[in-house]
Order: sequence, then C-alpha cells, then structure tokens
Amino acid sequence: MKATMLYAPRDVRFEDRPDPTIMKPTDAIIRISATCVCGSDLWPYRGVQPVKQPTPMGHEYCGIVEEVGRDVRNVKKGQFVIGSFVASDDTCAICHHGYQSRCVQGEFMSGAQAPLLRVPLADGTLVATAALPSADMLPDLLAVSDVLGTGWFAADAANVGPGSTVVVVGDGAVGLLGVLSAKQMGAERIIAMSGHAARQKLALEFGATEIVTERGDEGVARIKDLTKGLGADSVLECVGTQESMQQAIKSTRPGGWVGYVGVPHGVAFDGQPLFLATIHLHGGPAPVRRYLPDLIDLVWQGKIKPGKVFDLTLPLDQVAEGYRAMDERRAIKTLLMPTAESMR
Amino acid sequence: MKATMLYAPRDVRFEDRPDPTIMKPTDAIIRISATCVCGSDLWPYRGVQPVKQPTPMGHEYCGIVEEVGRDVRNVKKGQFVIGSFVASDDTCAICHHGYQSRCVQGEFMSGAQAPLLRVPLADGTLVATAALPSADMLPDLLAVSDVLGTGWFAADAANVGPGSTVVVVGDGAVGLLGVLSAKQMGAERIIAMSGHAARQKLALEFGATEIVTERGDEGVARIKDLTKGLGADSVLECVGTQESMQQAIKSTRPGGWVGYVGVPHGVAFDGQPLFLATIHLHGGPAPVRRYLPDLIDLVWQGKIKPGKVFDLTLPLDQVAEGYRAMDERRAIKTLLMPTAESMR
Repeated sequence: MKATMLYAPRDVRFEDRPDPTIMKPTDAIIRISATCVCGSDLWPYRGVQPVKQPTPMGHEYCGIVEEVGRDVRNVKKGQFVIGSFVASDDTCAICHHGYQSRCVQGEFMSGAQAPLLRVPLADGTLVATAALPSADMLPDLLAVSDVLGTGWFAADAANVGPGSTVVVVGDGAVGLLGVLSAKQMGAERIIAMSGHAARQKLALEFGATEIVTERGDEGVARIKDLTKGLGADSVLECVGTQESMQQAIKSTRPGGWVGYVGVPHGVAFDGQPLFLATIHLHGGPAPVRRYLPDLIDLVWQGKIKPGKVFDLTLPLDQVAEGYRAMDERRAIKTLLMPTAESMR
Repeated sequence: MKATMLYAPRDVRFEDRPDPTIMKPTDAIIRISATCVCGSDLWPYRGVQPVKQPTPMGHEYCGIVEEVGRDVRNVKKGQFVIGSFVASDDTCAICHHGYQSRCVQGEFMSGAQAPLLRVPLADGTLVATAALPSADMLPDLLAVSDVLGTGWFAADAANVGPGSTVVVVGDGAVGLLGVLSAKQMGAERIIAMSGHAARQKLALEFGATEIVTERGDEGVARIKDLTKGLGADSVLECVGTQESMQQAIKSTRPGGWVGYVGVPHGVAFDGQPLFLATIHLHGGPAPVRRYLPDLIDLVWQGKIKPGKVFDLTLPLDQVAEGYRAMDERRAIKTLLMPTAESMR
C-alpha cells in the first residue's frame, strides 16, 4: 500500500509501505473509510516536536474490519468500526476508571493516514456501529474518533453542565467541537474566543452564544466584563501554548474548572499564582474510548454534525496538501479519503 | 493589649499594641479563647517569604464576642464563635459557589495571636456554637478554624470518598488532619508519608492504614508497590515544596485527584508531564468557612478530636518559643492560651 510518512518538518510523503498484518492475536486490520490530519500532527510538521526518524502519520480513523486476530471477540470482519488515538484493553483498572487513554496496555496509534491500519487490542479499542453507515455520515463518524472526543473531554473535564457559563480558548477543530460539546451538556452561555470569521461562524452554528476576538490579557478582561468581573465557571483550553493556558486560567472564576486538551508545548505553571487562582485543573490525552458509544449514538441519530469541522476534503494521496492547508490556516481540518483513484 | 509581631526572620515579639476597635459597622471584636501558630507562619519566620515590615501575626482563632458593629445581625456579644483565616461575606456569588476564601470582599486575617481580634464581615465570617464550650473542647474547636478545615479541603479537593485509596504527603498538622478527614469521608486505605515517629503514631490514631517513610522518587516507588503499580486515587499535598508536589503528582493514578493546600514556595509545574499524568489538580487557600458548621458539629458531638495535633501548649506571652519549637520540629503545632498571667 501507499501510506503517509513524515520525514522532517514540512516533508510529508505518500509512499510505498508494507501492508499491515496481524502481529498479535488481539489485533485487527481495518480498511480505512476516512481519515484526517490532526492539530497535533502540526507540532512535528512545524518542527516544534522533533522528528527523529521517518514516522507513519495519522491516528484518527474509521473503517471496515478486514481481518481479526484469533483472540478478537467483539468485532467481526465486515463491521464498520471507530477507534480512538490510543489503543486500550478497556478491561484494566485504569480503563474501568474511564481513563482508557492511560490504559496499562495502552499504545498510541499511528499510521492511520493510509488505506489499511493495524489496531492493537481490537476488542477494547474498536466500537462497531449497528450497520454500515451512509457515505454522508462518514465525516461525522470520523470526527468522533479524536477531535470530537477530545473536545467532549475538555468540556467534561471543565465540569460543564446545565446552566454553566463556558469559555472556549482555541478556535481549531477541537475548540469548535468543545463548543458543540458544551452545548450538548446544557451550558447556558458559551463564549468562543476567536478572531477568525469562518471559525466564529461555525462556533455560533455549534452553539456559541458570544464571541470574544481579543486574546491574552485583553481577552481575559473581556471575559471578566461579560461575567460580572468573576470569570467563567468552565474554561476549555484547546491550544496548548503558554499564552492560551494563561488566558484559560485567568478567565476562570474562583472555584471554577479548566479542562485542557491542547498538548502543552512550552507551557509551565507557576505554583503560587495557580494556587491563589483556586481553580480545578484537569486534562491530558482524552480518554475518547469512554465516550465513543454515546457520541456514535448522537451522530447516528443525527443529533450532532461534528463533521462540519472538515472544511477541506482531499483524496488520501494529496495528504501533503492537507497538512499545508492546515498549517497555513487555510483549512480548519482536512478530511482524507482513500478513494480508489488515489490508491493506484 | 500585648500582641504578637514578626519583625524579621526568627524575630517574634510579644509587645504593646493598641486594642482593636470596630472600624466598620460589619466588624466584630472577639476576646480570644485560644489561638495557635500555623505552618504557613513559618514561611516568613524562616525568611522564605519576605517580612517587609513589622507584621501582626496569627489567623487561627476562636473566642467570645466582645462587641459588634451596628450592622452585625448573626452573632451577639457573649457568644462563642469560630472564624477562618479569610473574612468573607458569605453572600457573594463566589461564596455561594463555596469558595469563601476567594470572596469578592474577602480579607486575609492577621493579628489573632493576641487577646483581642477585630473580625471584618462578622456576619459572614463567624459561626457561633450552640453554647459556651468546656475548656477541654477548646483545642478541638480552635483546630476547626484553619488546620482541620484546610486538611478537610485537601481531602475534598482530592475527591476522597467511600472506598478511596488515599496518600497524604506531609506529616505536619494539616497533613495529619488530612488523614482524619479522609477517614471521616470513608476512605478505605490511607497511606501517610512520614519519617517521624510521633507523627506516624498520630497519623495511625487518626485513621492511617499504612505508613511510608521514604520520600521523593523512592516514596513514589513505594506507593506504586502498594497500589498494583497504578498510584492512589486521591493524594493530599500538604507541604508546598517542589519535591512534595512532584511526589504527590507521581503518586496519583491516571484519572486520580491531587488536592493541594500547602502554600507553594518555589513550585513550578512543567506542562507536558502534568498533561500526560492525566490527573485532576485542585487546591488553593482552603474555603474553611464552607465546612465550619459541619466540622464544629463533629467536634461538638465528640466524633473527632482534631485538637490532638497540638502537642505543645504555651501561655500566649511565650509565643516566640512556640514558633521556635515548630521551626525546629520539636512540636507539631503550638497552642497559645491568653491566660490572665500571660496578659499582665
């Protein structure tokens, strides 16, 4: 097959690779129906995170089970399945606590920007839909795999509930789906921080009630203005920079919650101001597996359309352009389709 | 009156000061029945926190209302009252959220190591007991004012509940009362980290089920040994140093909770390891006022004896020795009694 490899910053290649095979009896091989480029893929793409060796890219996926190892019981050849970016057994104590992204057997996925993917711990990792989905549902189902699950975790970690006043820092796909998640959880006010017209529009469509265009301390001042000087109950940090994290913490009311899912790069917290802020802080690699059944159900019933974050669709062999478009902020998120033509 | 002033590191003086008076109609003046030295008083005492000018010391108190301002309704002259280290109105939005230590009108208390104390926002700050307490109950009631309330908040922030496995980092009075709090909240296992025999004994008396004497990474390794390699559900950080904070974070299982109440000194969190740890972090100046009614009730009914943390009782005029004994770890916590003799 041909698959996506990152050789060095901005050097994405779609090149010949061996087809994946069953390596352990708990593996499955799936034929990818749709995959995409993640905001976190941009860290190594931009050289912020070192690329030590040519690396198979992609960790968001849905598709049809092609083959299963002999110990796999829960999924069958021919089923349509969705998994998250961490393979997990879903049986260990940590999984039982709902933190499948930290499963004791957990493995970060890679290589999903390809027509075929090996999924370890298939029984724990994959969730099958009731039937094969229609093609128009693919973007929504793919979104569940990571970007929606991560936005959902941000809102959950930030304790969003009925009546909450919520701030979302970050207008990337995760932040936008954080808005959608907060709306689903019953938030009363959802303030999206964005200076980008197309993203503001999508935020409003997903349920944002207000937009704040200012950033940094100016942005914090606007949030305070909008919340009687107190700050918001719940703040979703969906970027991962020092500026965005400070913006999130300072926008939170005493006793409020920050849910952070942007992989931190160059972020440090000074202990004493954090202490005095008296906030709750929770985040990490999102345990998307915890939410998969419910989120798939919401999509299946047509209640949410998270696939709207994909504003660029390309055949898989044009993956390099997919990265470029996101890097240059021409696209919010790139959907990649392993069409027959692109696989030739 | 004579009262306690800190002039410079290790320079505690008990000297003439004007009697406090009602300055605002919402003030009360109380005659102190018992007061004490706080672990946090040791930060300026040791010079870790600068002493810019002679400072009235003490923020833990209980006593008899001597006089109230004309707007005070909830407490009356002659009542026995307890307050916390932050005066709060108990009516603002932040107080309603249970974060009275961050009340919009909040004021940090000082000057309680004295026979008389002015308490701002008396209606919100003070809680009266049903009757005058007996003398033997004073240490327990005084403990509620800060050290128990803070240990209780640590356990609450760390989400301790029935069946929890809890680790307590710090064997000072707050940590020991964190053990007591975890026990009251139904924890199944309480692992106290302490290398000090007398403190271990008290920890066991308060409900610790295990003692770990190692510190730092060795201590973390022991906690992992005791928890099937996973870490504890809930960890109480009751010190405030970089080492203790790292010990707490690393002792927590993925998805677990760190409640931190040690005022951080020289503590910094590196964003990426904290993110990957996937823990909940909550702490700050404890909203003791939230817990006062329930904790006073537990003491009044004789269900808890938090006053056991006072292993040194001195007349108030010997306050300097009280600081020394704690600084040198000869005492866990010093109770100070403004006896008639000591006031002459």
